Amino acid sequence: MFRLDEKLSKDCDLVTELHFCQLLLMNDKQYPWLILVPKVSDIEEVYELTREQQHNLWDEVAETSKALKQIFNPDKLNIGALGNIVRQLHVHVVARFKEDIAWPGPVWGAHPPKAYPQDEKEKLIKKLKQKLVPVL
Amino acid sequence: MFRLDEKLSKDCDLVTELHFCQLLLMNDKQYPWLILVPKVSDIEEVYELTREQQHNLWDEVAETSKALKQIFNPDKLNIGALGNIVRQLHVHVVARFKEDIAWPGPVWGAHPPKAYPQDEKEKLIKKLKQKLVPVL
Repeated sequence: MFRLDEKLSKDCDLVTELHFCQLLLMNDKQYPWLILVPKVSDIEEVYELTREQQHNLWDEVAETSKALKQIFNPDKLNIGALGNIVRQLHVHVVARFKEDIAWPGPVWGAHPPKAYPQDEKEKLIKKLKQKLVPVL
Repeated sequence: MFRLDEKLSKDCDLVTELHFCQLLLMNDKQYPWLILVPKVSDIEEVYELTREQQHNLWDEVAETSKALKQIFNPDKLNIGALGNIVRQLHVHVVARFKEDIAWPGPVWGAHPPKAYPQDEKEKLIKKLKQKLVPVL
C-alpha cells in the first residue's frame, strides 16, 4: 500500500493527486520545486517500475514540466531522481533561473529551504492545480 | 542534424550508439557515471521531445540503469536531466555508493573529475557494451 515518506510529508505540501503520482510542492520559496511520488509501494529505483508505469511517471513529469514552464518561464528545468536520503521513489522537477541562489549548480543540498508565506503557497498550489488538472 | 556538444565530447568517451541516444561515459573514476544524449537537434528540455521520443529516452535510461546495477551493485542510482551548463539535452545516470566522495549529495559540481587510467576505462566501456547491446 502506498504511504508517503515522512520526510517528504514534512518538507512538502500536496498539490494534487495525478493518476499515477502524488504531486507535491517543496516548501522552499527559493525555487519553484515540485516532486512527483508514484503511488506504488516498496520501489526505490525507476527501473523497478513496469515499463508502463515508467511511461506513466515520465508522462506526468512532462506535464508538470510544461506547467512550470507556463507559470514561471524559467531559464531551465531540472529533473532528478536521486533518493540518496529519502529512499521512496520520487522525481524532482525544479524551475531554475540564472538569478537563483544555486545557479548553475544543482538545488539538492545547496541551501537550507526557506518556507513560503502561507498565502503565497496557497496561491501557487491553486495555480498549479488549474494548469495540471485539465491535461491529466 | 545531431551534433554532440563540445563539452560533453571533451569530458566523455563514447560507450555505444543506442537506438535513440548516444551513450557516453563521463571520464571521472570517482563514480560510474553515464550520460545519454538523444540523437536529435535543438532540444533542451525533455518535454520538447515527442511523447514517443520521451519513452524511447526513458526506456534507454532504464536499460542503462540496469546495466550499472548489474556491473556495480550500487547503493543507489541517480538520474538527472539538468542542463544548466551544457544546454544540449542529456540525461545522467550515476551509480552511487555510501562511500563515494559526494554521498549523500549530488555529484554535479561536487568535485573536479579524476580521469580513468586508459586501460581501466577501456575495460569498463567493453563491459558496458556487453551488457547493453543485447537488450536494445
